[in-house]
Amino acid sequence: MDGKLERLRKKETNREDVLSSLYSILDNTKKFHGISVGFPGFVNNGVVMYPPNFPAIEILPVQEILHQRYNVPVVVENDANLYALGEYIAGAGKESKNMVLFTLGTGVGGGIIIDGEIYRGSRGFAGELGHIIINSDGPLCGCGMRGCLEAYIGAERIIETFVGYRRKGFASVLDYPESVKEMYLAAKNGDPLSRFIFSLVGKYLGLAIVSLVNILDPDVFVIGGGISGAWRFIKVGVEEVLNQRLIEGVKVKKGKLGDRAGIIGGWYLLDKESIQFTK
Amino acid sequence: MDGKLERLRKKETNREDVLSSLYSILDNTKKFHGISVGFPGFVNNGVVMYPPNFPAIEILPVQEILHQRYNVPVVVENDANLYALGEYIAGAGKESKNMVLFTLGTGVGGGIIIDGEIYRGSRGFAGELGHIIINSDGPLCGCGMRGCLEAYIGAERIIETFVGYRRKGFASVLDYPESVKEMYLAAKNGDPLSRFIFSLVGKYLGLAIVSLVNILDPDVFVIGGGISGAWRFIKVGVEEVLNQRLIEGVKVKKGKLGDRAGIIGGWYLLDKESIQFTK
Repeated sequence: MDGKLERLRKKETNREDVLSSLYSILDNTKKFHGISVGFPGFVNNGVVMYPPNFPAIEILPVQEILHQRYNVPVVVENDANLYALGEYIAGAGKESKNMVLFTLGTGVGGGIIIDGEIYRGSRGFAGELGHIIINSDGPLCGCGMRGCLEAYIGAERIIETFVGYRRKGFASVLDYPESVKEMYLAAKNGDPLSRFIFSLVGKYLGLAIVSLVNILDPDVFVIGGGISGAWRFIKVGVEEVLNQRLIEGVKVKKGKLGDRAGIIGGWYLLDKESIQFTK
Repeated sequence: MDGKLERLRKKETNREDVLSSLYSILDNTKKFHGISVGFPGFVNNGVVMYPPNFPAIEILPVQEILHQRYNVPVVVENDANLYALGEYIAGAGKESKNMVLFTLGTGVGGGIIIDGEIYRGSRGFAGELGHIIINSDGPLCGCGMRGCLEAYIGAERIIETFVGYRRKGFASVLDYPESVKEMYLAAKNGDPLSRFIFSLVGKYLGLAIVSLVNILDPDVFVIGGGISGAWRFIKVGVEEVLNQRLIEGVKVKKGKLGDRAGIIGGWYLLDKESIQFTK
């Protein structure tokens, strides 16, 4: 397997009509041998099911639709799963056997790689790591439970936690951060409250990691997604929890590939599937 | 594969000298074609490592030792893993794809079966489901963390919870139950506090199940071990939590095989390995 990333473009998706968005990209691409789609939501055998960010879609057989229209091999997979596969093949999970990925952003996602394969579960719902419960008395989550990881470290919740401490009188250069990025920039400049909040994020993440070590015993955890940019501050909290539990021999690393992770994962999967197609 | 359980015997193990216990059974058995050992603790490639209930053992290559002595195929595996395999092959997990087993007893153990195979993790530590954290502000666990499932529903903790409520004046025919079994008998006779405590056990178990659905998305959970005898009362709490999260399509069932589960799992694994030996 060999390849080169020729172009990386970002384009806003039309949430009401995601297929048109895909068509407009593909119809304007001169030549391609395959299509790989990373979709934010459940995907089962190429069929997208009830994606939370696309309320207009219930069940959409994206793989079949694209294959019919373009007549090339098509792979459709949950975006975090492709991200995980990319980091496993070419990033921070290289040379591991079993890997768990967290993506930290607006929401908290995840992907599980077992022996080099995406683990999808019985219905394609596996790896929803943002909904690991870390404290059953914790804050309400969008999913209806209390104390899911996402209810603590989804981007909005991180900002809310910051504001809560700020109002209690903790010192910071920021009053009401507009984004987690703003907190990160402040933390880089030494802001104590921003640093403290990131270490809390790490503690919450560490609790989910402890549960996952006991369940899956992977050799490496990879932390990706936008908020992983603040890893040097988050790490402090993760390590504190892992030391408390005396967990040794498990690596927790920042992802290496960023936006390219999902692309590399998608390309790898397409390559594997294409070989199967031509067999 | 075919077989018949000819004899099932129980024998106390000498904790200081577990090998002598095994020898005394095997030396007095006339004829056997293989040995399968289910060991309570971590087992990696036939090597037992730091088993918590056998402080005299650090690292013991049980498989190699028994193979050298008896010259037959030997399988050594974590006991809960064999239990899980048995239930998967011939019990409550039959016809499932991915299965998660909980064993409820003095401690809380577990086993994970993925596509018909025991999932062991990268170092053989996977499936320690008693140490899933359900409430990071919860009671201290033997492992050093707070709020592990076992810290809520290990046998001792169930009795402690009962006693706590009893002292607060809740009505029961029991004052200080000697065992969870005593509570079960009371519950069967309609004792309201015993029933309530089992439903609490179910709620705690349900929280771990919710996390596992999000992580592993199995098609079935099997509940085994001595305390699963009280399943009809525990079930009430499990269902309450699963309904709250609107989880559908996942089965949670009581184990079917009891003490035979591990034996059937061990026999199956031995059969598989023996075929490999003779190839």
